[in-house]
Amino acid sequence: MNDAREVVVLRYGHRPGRDDRMTTHVGLTARALGADRVIFPDNAGQSAETIRGVTDRFGGPFAVELRDDQKAFVGNWEGVVVHLTMYGERVQDVEGDVREAVGLDEPDVVGEASPPRDLLVVVGGEKVPWALYERADFNVGVTNQPHSEVAGLAVFLDRLFDGAELDREWADADRRVVPEATGKTVVDAEEGPAEEGPAEEGPAEGNGDGVEGAGEAADRD
Amino acid sequence: MNDAREVVVLRYGHRPGRDDRMTTHVGLTARALGADRVIFPDNAGQSAETIRGVTDRFGGPFAVELRDDQKAFVGNWEGVVVHLTMYGERVQDVEGDVREAVGLDEPDVVGEASPPRDLLVVVGGEKVPWALYERADFNVGVTNQPHSEVAGLAVFLDRLFDGAELDREWADADRRVVPEATGKTVVDAEEGPAEEGPAEEGPAEGNGDGVEGAGEAADRD
Repeated sequence: MNDAREVVVLRYGHRPGRDDRMTTHVGLTARALGADRVIFPDNAGQSAETIRGVTDRFGGPFAVELRDDQKAFVGNWEGVVVHLTMYGERVQDVEGDVREAVGLDEPDVVGEASPPRDLLVVVGGEKVPWALYERADFNVGVTNQPHSEVAGLAVFLDRLFDGAELDREWADADRRVVPEATGKTVVDAEEGPAEEGPAEEGPAEGNGDGVEGAGEAADRD
Repeated sequence: MNDAREVVVLRYGHRPGRDDRMTTHVGLTARALGADRVIFPDNAGQSAETIRGVTDRFGGPFAVELRDDQKAFVGNWEGVVVHLTMYGERVQDVEGDVREAVGLDEPDVVGEASPPRDLLVVVGGEKVPWALYERADFNVGVTNQPHSEVAGLAVFLDRLFDGAELDREWADADRRVVPEATGKTVVDAEEGPAEEGPAEEGPAEGNGDGVEGAGEAADRD
């Protein structure tokens, strides 16, 4: 969703079977919360297919890439690297610096914003090499507590974009969920606002459990 | 972490084996991001043990409860119920109303804050009954896109507490991670600030992958 810079999420490491669902959720979260692309290890093809399917149906642009050179990819990245880790600096302390480094800051004086730079957000999934801590421009902890790489990524992206990602519009979608106080309404993406178009009652996805993406992910991973 | 009100996360539904990791991550996220208690279905004992272990080591207070009466528990809840669902109202539109409903708002006039009320945040894990949509005071979508219930919970809690959860202090911890720009430092929780106490280099947890909780969760689920 970013015109001036590319924001890429890289999932470091993946154990097929065991990590399928977490990797899928990392990718779906990256897409939903404003990243432009996710990179998975090349053994995470099943998760990649799930993300592509969601993008086909709910819109993009959002790219999924499988690579076998993750270490080199991070090393050669020419923009800013953020590594999310519970050992890192507190997100509330460094988020301003990260925003400034990639040109998402809001300067006091108009016209003095930093130039846009691409951002790579690395999310670990297995033992992360020490070189990654050293290469990262920012090692960032969304709390210094053990929790979830999906949760850490979500909070980081929401703070990086300062909520703007929630207003993103989606291109080339087949369908669109209509936000409402009580209901599960999905319309063709071509239709106008819900109050004008006929609403199709029913679950958006197979199991229609009304959960944040669990229906999506659960059907496919 | 909340004195005036209790914030409880309820994981609705759990498929043993298949959902272990997601349920564990829901619980770890609830703990790390400011909830006071998590309630799992009674078949999620393994996830409950993981959360309790983390609380023993990294501190609390945080409670984990297994219940077989989730539907009745939600129905009988006397405070406010938020149900996170991709079909719900946009979080950016209703977060102010939720904060006001539980007394976390910041009124323009000092002394006019709403009274504190307990909050139950329901996170689906399987087909959520329609009655839950109707019982919820707020059906809230963290985006109306399919992604991850863990990501949705994380963003919701961060916005509910307006970031205050990140500054929470932990009681009765064995160990504490020292936030730093490059490093993986864990100290005994009794020690003072890192610059004063001797730092123990090394991973906090078994596999020490430096990931947001993946090490924790991966070791135990």
